[in-house]
Amino acid sequence: MNPQTRKDVILLPNTPSILGWASIAGKKEGQGPMGFCFDVIEPDSHFGKETWEQAESELQRRTVELMLSHARCTTAQVDAVFGGDLINQCTSATFGMRHLGIPFLGIYGACSTMAEGLLLSSLMVDGGHMQHCAAVTSSHFSGAERQFRFPLSYGGQRTPNAQWTATAAGSVMVGECSRPPYVRGVCIGCITDPAITDANNMGAAMAPAAADTILRYLMATHTSPADYDAIVTGDLGVVGSDLLLTLAAQNGYDLSAVHRDCGVMMFDNTTQDTHAGGSGCGCSASILCGYFLPKIAAGEIKNLLFAATGALLSPMLCQQGETIPCISHLVHLSFTTGGTL
Amino acid sequence: MNPQTRKDVILLPNTPSILGWASIAGKKEGQGPMGFCFDVIEPDSHFGKETWEQAESELQRRTVELMLSHARCTTAQVDAVFGGDLINQCTSATFGMRHLGIPFLGIYGACSTMAEGLLLSSLMVDGGHMQHCAAVTSSHFSGAERQFRFPLSYGGQRTPNAQWTATAAGSVMVGECSRPPYVRGVCIGCITDPAITDANNMGAAMAPAAADTILRYLMATHTSPADYDAIVTGDLGVVGSDLLLTLAAQNGYDLSAVHRDCGVMMFDNTTQDTHAGGSGCGCSASILCGYFLPKIAAGEIKNLLFAATGALLSPMLCQQGETIPCISHLVHLSFTTGGTL
Repeated sequence: MNPQTRKDVILLPNTPSILGWASIAGKKEGQGPMGFCFDVIEPDSHFGKETWEQAESELQRRTVELMLSHARCTTAQVDAVFGGDLINQCTSATFGMRHLGIPFLGIYGACSTMAEGLLLSSLMVDGGHMQHCAAVTSSHFSGAERQFRFPLSYGGQRTPNAQWTATAAGSVMVGECSRPPYVRGVCIGCITDPAITDANNMGAAMAPAAADTILRYLMATHTSPADYDAIVTGDLGVVGSDLLLTLAAQNGYDLSAVHRDCGVMMFDNTTQDTHAGGSGCGCSASILCGYFLPKIAAGEIKNLLFAATGALLSPMLCQQGETIPCISHLVHLSFTTGGTL
Repeated sequence: MNPQTRKDVILLPNTPSILGWASIAGKKEGQGPMGFCFDVIEPDSHFGKETWEQAESELQRRTVELMLSHARCTTAQVDAVFGGDLINQCTSATFGMRHLGIPFLGIYGACSTMAEGLLLSSLMVDGGHMQHCAAVTSSHFSGAERQFRFPLSYGGQRTPNAQWTATAAGSVMVGECSRPPYVRGVCIGCITDPAITDANNMGAAMAPAAADTILRYLMATHTSPADYDAIVTGDLGVVGSDLLLTLAAQNGYDLSAVHRDCGVMMFDNTTQDTHAGGSGCGCSASILCGYFLPKIAAGEIKNLLFAATGALLSPMLCQQGETIPCISHLVHLSFTTGGTL
């Protein structure tokens, strides 16, 4: 085996298209500054089900079915769906998808799941192995709080740097087509561990992962932040976003003019009491699908880096004194298939 | 979008090779009938660590490092590693891989994880996006029992159809090369749900998923069981294996002459009190890497279907009265790159 240059930054020669997308959000998310952009706002936090876990599965199922209708695609036409979520054993995805009959590939990237699923779907189509490959993810405030921190009825006080898990989902379909948005490149995240042990400070934990992935992509492609209309992180929130800009600046990259964070965008802390911002797989997934993809399709945004971040947080390992490893996967979305950025 | 034939059965035109593999097993697994085939048998069930979760992360790290040495590959040469496991938030993989600096893609397929990781790695290499892509998974008896059923110190009596989670791990490296074993085709599993709610009867829950995937591959490739030297399931155990043969026979396929189940192979119930057999991600992963891959490399086995099965089991959802959805992913491994089987 010869030495080689690692191919963790991968440019996609066939630039697959995103054929369809959908977003569904909960009531609080609908009342926030991004409420205008989601396809559906569901006022019932139980989504007609009895438990939070069943509610999130229902949310994911509805989002995929809405995405399929937007992509004008039947379940029988989908080669595979990449799905995952935060709930133990990824049940929102597996229980949400179990009756659709679509070949299923389970993934786990915590809040980076949308980027991981979109990245893998794009590689499947670009490599010629699939024609239509979907990705879906979700999060639900009540289920996530119970699992990762405290049950809501415990009434624990939230710290200033805590984030608010969004009740939301997003789904996309990647395929061979000749219309934007196109996927031009991806960067697979490396696990970083800044040795943070506080499950209420995930933004700070995740920022180094985002910086690592974004800077690796910029360096490998010889591009600068000015080449992009937006460099979007998943859910760093206020604390993590500041840290990302600092880390990038220390490496000679000024992201301040183009950086957007879905966690910061999702809520208005002055009226919604969400502290450092939104979080959860569904936060960046729903804002990607509700806000950014339509803007790229319309040409209002020409080039965008979507770098969702995940805190690979485990309550049991936290209780054992472990730190929180984090990861960020990146997808380069574009209005055009090539040429200058 | 035109109607199409779904591509969930994918033949790999470039037939990537498995460049290296490794297996590490625990003491009980080493004392069983497969003990002769593992690279390492570790007598310390804590793997030198303080908790079961840390032990399993250490097991996974050691297995990847051993696999890299077998593949004569440095961490810097690996484009990505697909990793997953049974423990909540996939911590065995994320904590095990966090210091290796290899781009990481988290997957969740319960005990089908080895097949899912091998399948995805093979597609990455076959599609030309990566040169070296690894997969790893593991399970640990003590951590899994505590999480999914009862802590060991509770002393719960095991049912006759219960299986024994293997303490074991396996890892493979897929790359471009011209030596066997080759990956010739894959089949992505659909989630099946036979409405079983008993977390101690996973073999019966998983058998329909295995039957669905294996029969879809045979039908799509116009092959019969006689074309393969072995059709290997992950960990159906005694109960699930019988059910698989029955389900296949009902559809006109006699698998009895070639079917092997890693769960049945792993332990000797007459002396090891393991009831229906072994289970866990590491069961099929370690037997694939310890036993089957060397035989394919040596030409003793010409064609093999590896169909690992996963029970997408969630203790919380079981407590909510939910059933256990299951999945099986398949990889066709071969001594040759083409021609007649």
